[in-house]
Amino acid sequence: MIPILSVVGRSDSGKTTLLEKLIRELSARGRRIGTVKHHYHGPVAVDVPGKDSWRHRQAGAVAVALVSPDTLFVVRESPPGLSLEALVHRSLFGVDLVLTEGFKSGPMPKIEVNRRAQQAPLLCGPADRLVAVVADWDTGASVPHFGLEDVAPLADFIEREHSPRTGRQSVEALVGGRRVVLDPRAEAELLRAVRGVLGECADSSGGWPIELRIPGQTP
Amino acid sequence: MIPILSVVGRSDSGKTTLLEKLIRELSARGRRIGTVKHHYHGPVAVDVPGKDSWRHRQAGAVAVALVSPDTLFVVRESPPGLSLEALVHRSLFGVDLVLTEGFKSGPMPKIEVNRRAQQAPLLCGPADRLVAVVADWDTGASVPHFGLEDVAPLADFIEREHSPRTGRQSVEALVGGRRVVLDPRAEAELLRAVRGVLGECADSSGGWPIELRIPGQTP
Repeated sequence: MIPILSVVGRSDSGKTTLLEKLIRELSARGRRIGTVKHHYHGPVAVDVPGKDSWRHRQAGAVAVALVSPDTLFVVRESPPGLSLEALVHRSLFGVDLVLTEGFKSGPMPKIEVNRRAQQAPLLCGPADRLVAVVADWDTGASVPHFGLEDVAPLADFIEREHSPRTGRQSVEALVGGRRVVLDPRAEAELLRAVRGVLGECADSSGGWPIELRIPGQTP
Repeated sequence: MIPILSVVGRSDSGKTTLLEKLIRELSARGRRIGTVKHHYHGPVAVDVPGKDSWRHRQAGAVAVALVSPDTLFVVRESPPGLSLEALVHRSLFGVDLVLTEGFKSGPMPKIEVNRRAQQAPLLCGPADRLVAVVADWDTGASVPHFGLEDVAPLADFIEREHSPRTGRQSVEALVGGRRVVLDPRAEAELLRAVRGVLGECADSSGGWPIELRIPGQTP
């Protein structure tokens, strides 16, 4: 599963600026970074040079994709109840780490940005899965603190504590859009069944990964 | 699996206009339509009101998602070798039918638009999986013909011949991004294994669908 970390903080605390620095630092280290952000202020109006796709959407298409040799662009209805994990699993495939801007009430581990000039306490505590604070003062939180410019040490911390596990085959499972951690016995059983049915097909064509979707009883 | 149909034709033959009409007609019939289009003319430059996401992408993020209550918007690197089927499986989930504009050399069944004024023969033949022609003259092709305004009969044809199977549980499988049709025995075996490991979890929480991804030997 792709690890997800949320960068949270009050308005104007500098979340986007910190994210830009982190994305640059981690990308320079060879990590493929994905990001997710909420947009609250009315519908997303997007002006695209390939206007035809936009005509599709306005005619009533639920989901519209525009594919160029270097960019894939998708605008679609937000599926009701789409979890962050399902969104990442589907739309941000192929990245090593996802950083969200915001999502402070979400279930992911959080890095909070806080500036002394805002004179306001932290939004999150240990119960919110706060794992680090980025601030220009000692907030007193009992998690690692980093200065506003300490990007390299923060990236070290993220790579050490929140990097994807590598070097081992694992099954990513979502049930109803929620990530499920499989115990090793269950994982081995699933792998055996999938390999038995599809493994030859995948091996002969070099065609990994295998992706399965089982819609459930009442599609 | 979501059925995919390609609307093809020469430049200015009226593909987008036909697609708009089809999307309106099929949506009015309760079908959830997705679309895919190529964009050849340079990089996709998108101007988004939530500029912060754009800052993420410019800082080097491989994939950026912007989520509002009604719209989900994703800009990302085109994964090399991404097949149309994998794109649809991942990014256009939850639709009933996908119509592509273009993709004439793709593997999907095709509807070709052709106008007499262009004085040019059809681009596709039976070997290209041409299934219907929309034209203002008799092109001579041995597939069903529809007039440029015959949207309802064309929608009838699409619903009859290219609708999703319904009423039955089925496993969608992609191997290396390519759709694999499972024989009933293989499907039953996979379902049994997945239900055995994850079914209780899905049933108790009402949490279908189940999605699995097995990255393969060398991630």
